[in-house]
Amino acid sequence: MKLYDCTSAPNTRRVRMFMAEKGIDIPRIEIDIAQGENLQSDFLSKNPRGVLPLLELDDGSYLDESIAICRYLEELHPEPALMGHDAKTKAKIESCQRHIEFDALLPLADVLRNSAPTFKERALPGTSGVIAIDALVDRGIASYQRFLERLNDRLKDQPYVAGESFSIADITALCALDFAKWAKLKTPEQHTHILRWYALVNTRTSAGA
Amino acid sequence: MKLYDCTSAPNTRRVRMFMAEKGIDIPRIEIDIAQGENLQSDFLSKNPRGVLPLLELDDGSYLDESIAICRYLEELHPEPALMGHDAKTKAKIESCQRHIEFDALLPLADVLRNSAPTFKERALPGTSGVIAIDALVDRGIASYQRFLERLNDRLKDQPYVAGESFSIADITALCALDFAKWAKLKTPEQHTHILRWYALVNTRTSAGA
Repeated sequence: MKLYDCTSAPNTRRVRMFMAEKGIDIPRIEIDIAQGENLQSDFLSKNPRGVLPLLELDDGSYLDESIAICRYLEELHPEPALMGHDAKTKAKIESCQRHIEFDALLPLADVLRNSAPTFKERALPGTSGVIAIDALVDRGIASYQRFLERLNDRLKDQPYVAGESFSIADITALCALDFAKWAKLKTPEQHTHILRWYALVNTRTSAGA
Repeated sequence: MKLYDCTSAPNTRRVRMFMAEKGIDIPRIEIDIAQGENLQSDFLSKNPRGVLPLLELDDGSYLDESIAICRYLEELHPEPALMGHDAKTKAKIESCQRHIEFDALLPLADVLRNSAPTFKERALPGTSGVIAIDALVDRGIASYQRFLERLNDRLKDQPYVAGESFSIADITALCALDFAKWAKLKTPEQHTHILRWYALVNTRTSAGA
């Protein structure tokens, strides 16, 4: 297997952290999104959607979408389980990790893509010629703030985002919070449960991936 | 178990079709999104995110996100498998079904939420006070058109969206194409592979769910 990666992007980091937690080490090929390398024909011939990360399987086929890549790796290397053990934990972790995608990662991507000069005509991932919409920046920031309130509530009664154990939901949340830093969106000090959790997961070796 | 449902919404239909394919029949409680019933305290006490569908489990806990609900049902009732049998098919189906969510369902939701008078101040699901952004309508339509081109390419060489067998990806795609109808976004006649596939899956009993 080979991973097409972009060091600076949050979704690629999710896969790198997931692999680090499982001790999986495979070759990585860097694709520079800021420079638009993902929109050039060489990469598009591998993934017509133009997005990263992308996993090249041993049979030569390709798999995109970070969570689908993690699912594949979880099936091949079940321990430590990061996507749940039984019907209920699998479903609760999946639900929780989707909350973070829809309520934090997507709004934050809107903030970046509709404000940074680099993406002025690439306001959607994997596509050229999509013009930025200014109003999405404030909408994205407000969505992210609502997300932080709910995340803080959730972490009141449990050590990790999806319950008693570290899971892929913690990986997605950590990547989202760090992604927010470029937009100077800090976690407010009153969200003490998030700050406690952040300090805990940020000490894991995988956080450096 | 009980399902909090909204007959007219695409995400709730995904779960109804999934259950119909598996022969699962549980009580359903209708929540009227257009009337804002999902934003009232009674429903928010069950799901603070205010979105549907929502599954009430036998232990009294709640599970949202259609795909997480389907995952739970797939674990409890593995046959017929709609989310794959082995590592590779599970991952490919998950990737494919996420393409449809990000490239069709989300853009179509943007078209609806930012153009219909009902949602003028509810432009994001589950949240009140979010004002519509006109420019998202054209952006959403263009995204959906790109999606249809890629879907047609994909269906050139395989009978179903994710490969040789009917899967949850077909359910998501059928619900997306039918959701597009309210915006009068028909599948163009040159997309013959989509039209062939649509006729095939639309004959299934579950399509009536």
